[in-house]
Amino acid sequence: MKITLKDIAKKANVSPSAVSLVLNDRPCRISKEKKDLIKRIAEEYNYSANQIARSLVTQKSKTIGLIIPDIENIFFSSLAKQIEEQCRKRGYMLIIVNSDNDYAHDLELLDLLLSRSVDGMFIIPSNESYKEHSELVHRLSKLDNTSTPYVMIDRVYPEQACNKVWFDNEEGAYLAVKHLLENGHRKIACIANYGNDSNGKSRLEGFYRAMREYHCEVEEDLVIDGDYRIDSGYHAGKSLLEKDMSAVFITNDMMALGFLKAAYEQGKQVPDDISVVSYDNTIYPYIFGVELTSIEQDVGSLSHHAVDLLFSKMEEKEKAPEEICLIPRLIKRTSVQSH
Amino acid sequence: MKITLKDIAKKANVSPSAVSLVLNDRPCRISKEKKDLIKRIAEEYNYSANQIARSLVTQKSKTIGLIIPDIENIFFSSLAKQIEEQCRKRGYMLIIVNSDNDYAHDLELLDLLLSRSVDGMFIIPSNESYKEHSELVHRLSKLDNTSTPYVMIDRVYPEQACNKVWFDNEEGAYLAVKHLLENGHRKIACIANYGNDSNGKSRLEGFYRAMREYHCEVEEDLVIDGDYRIDSGYHAGKSLLEKDMSAVFITNDMMALGFLKAAYEQGKQVPDDISVVSYDNTIYPYIFGVELTSIEQDVGSLSHHAVDLLFSKMEEKEKAPEEICLIPRLIKRTSVQSH
Repeated sequence: MKITLKDIAKKANVSPSAVSLVLNDRPCRISKEKKDLIKRIAEEYNYSANQIARSLVTQKSKTIGLIIPDIENIFFSSLAKQIEEQCRKRGYMLIIVNSDNDYAHDLELLDLLLSRSVDGMFIIPSNESYKEHSELVHRLSKLDNTSTPYVMIDRVYPEQACNKVWFDNEEGAYLAVKHLLENGHRKIACIANYGNDSNGKSRLEGFYRAMREYHCEVEEDLVIDGDYRIDSGYHAGKSLLEKDMSAVFITNDMMALGFLKAAYEQGKQVPDDISVVSYDNTIYPYIFGVELTSIEQDVGSLSHHAVDLLFSKMEEKEKAPEEICLIPRLIKRTSVQSH
Repeated sequence: MKITLKDIAKKANVSPSAVSLVLNDRPCRISKEKKDLIKRIAEEYNYSANQIARSLVTQKSKTIGLIIPDIENIFFSSLAKQIEEQCRKRGYMLIIVNSDNDYAHDLELLDLLLSRSVDGMFIIPSNESYKEHSELVHRLSKLDNTSTPYVMIDRVYPEQACNKVWFDNEEGAYLAVKHLLENGHRKIACIANYGNDSNGKSRLEGFYRAMREYHCEVEEDLVIDGDYRIDSGYHAGKSLLEKDMSAVFITNDMMALGFLKAAYEQGKQVPDDISVVSYDNTIYPYIFGVELTSIEQDVGSLSHHAVDLLFSKMEEKEKAPEEICLIPRLIKRTSVQSH
């Protein structure tokens, strides 16, 4: 049985408010002996740790919440780790919850975090929410009148006015494809998650923009929809490698791994037989034999901006929402050859 | 400003207890109009989400806490994901906190979870805690008298009597090295994290047990201490590959990646030039060219047992602590050749 304030009061033969005052170290006219007794009882029943009541009183929990869509995805787990480190440096602890890319969970977890009295929140919504997110936006808009500011990270809804930090996905893809074009490639394939992911859609748009700029026609059967997983890159690779193309732009690292596996199985060399640019720049420590040119989204910078923004909002509640768009970088290695 | 029960009461011109009854859907003699008014005010100020007060009343939060040591490590992030899925199936949400392998954080986060009224906890303590964990054990032992059961997972203290689920690390390593010995290898190297990790120490013991069983002398300069990271496997590889040996047992996948990279750079083939067995069985989708034989620790089974155990304790508080030791499996691929 959990012990309540009342139980402690009974045991110490004092009023519940006396217990509250003592345990919250507030000034009060209670004898040293009684104080010690109250604290001893609280300790004995492990009540000291129960700060819920305290947070109801002080309205400060020194806790930040983070909703991530997929804890197994290295981009998000690395982001979570960096956000946590920076919150800790400021004396705040981070509560992480995982939506598993499910919109119903987004809503549930938002309520959970609010009910746990977080002082602020970071939200990376589910993939699913891109299709329909009016209820989430409605609930978030209600927060604007409260003392719980939030920052949307990485996946943001263009129409929603709120604090946001994200990468320009269209520009990132543009940089990648431009690099292939500058190296003389014209028959360029693209593996993108454009069906289900708004960031993936933007990356595909960046691909088209670069191709247009170089007056290069896109062959539609060289554009393949994937789901960001290794398998989908592998299958896309198997089908693409039979076609006439000299280069491929792959919109995330996991699909790039799958593609490289397919190329390896067919005895195709990167970059001798095919040039590759991928997105994320997270897997270079895991692969060898191929030095993958990739678009880097600097997680350190993303987390830094997001944490700064949230804490500035926590200090000044009245501040207007801010939007910070970061530009990804092309990291050149050796997976692209002049054509 | 967050709104309180009292504020709502004032606005609706009723008592705070009336507000509490209405918002918690308890039977009460309050008119439909007043009820609607109270709910409307609560909704307007986003109070409905604030279940803290409710959890203080009902003593049930339908929330489980999980302390993990490193969210970036794929073993832990995958474990967290599976635990979360299984909790969700039972109608519970999971709050994840990351200790960053720091013992002071273990203590802090334990308090945080308790203060957030979790109904139960999973704890994977920091590496650091192996050296000294008396305060953590003390705090955990106090929980035995409360309604917050907990289960230690993966990293367990042998001397502590509590609910535990873990893998037999000594046996796992023994199986790996026995497989090399059965294939005729005698000059076997080992890369282990025996200096800072109790599981790593057990894996080294398994290595020695197998070697003893085959009357095989261990050459001490073939045993190298690593830290589970890619870099340490790479450096161990560079030094080992100059020595006289035909096989290596590597006690985690990240170090195995580093070793494979070193071998690749030196033009050494696996298994033609050197046989390799690794531990974790997590990286086979990420590498190609080498089909890595590895020790599998089934995360699904680990999470399944841990969740079952915690929920059975939550139902029957008086139950004696249970300890479940799981045996890892050798997954044979093609990275070991007969010698």
